Amino acid sequence: MPRFMDVHHHMEGITPEALHEEHAKDLEHQQSEKGVRFIKAWADPKAGKVFCLSEGPDMNSVQRVHEKAGHRADEIYEVSIEEE
Amino acid sequence: MPRFMDVHHHMEGITPEALHEEHAKDLEHQQSEKGVRFIKAWADPKAGKVFCLSEGPDMNSVQRVHEKAGHRADEIYEVSIEEE
Repeated sequence: MPRFMDVHHHMEGITPEALHEEHAKDLEHQQSEKGVRFIKAWADPKAGKVFCLSEGPDMNSVQRVHEKAGHRADEIYEVSIEEE
Repeated sequence: MPRFMDVHHHMEGITPEALHEEHAKDLEHQQSEKGVRFIKAWADPKAGKVFCLSEGPDMNSVQRVHEKAGHRADEIYEVSIEEE
């Protein structure tokens, strides 16, 4: 299943509790999009950036989950290469 | 140890082999910066973006490793909140 990294802007001041709540909304709504699974999220509250790693059949399915959760991603990238 | 997400631009066409080589250079040079550890990297060769997750004492130490490896990051964020 393709993997995606998305970026949310204007998230200045986001708290651990708020990230937890928003991520929980993604997990709730991902059930409506076959194959979409949110894996992890990271936030920089000073710079106002949130990064989410997910997998799904395509970019639009991932974005639809974010839209249903009320926080459309500003950028989404298909990260077809992974290294660790 | 703080964690960082960095973003490299202009990486259009990067191959799995090239990402592997560049990441290996980070792993080699991280030994020169106390506490820096590169954890994972993802690439979107179409959009030309590479994302790296690392940890280290501060942002400058992480950037110095990238500089020694020959690929300075265009953006670095301290991702002080993590969720899965």
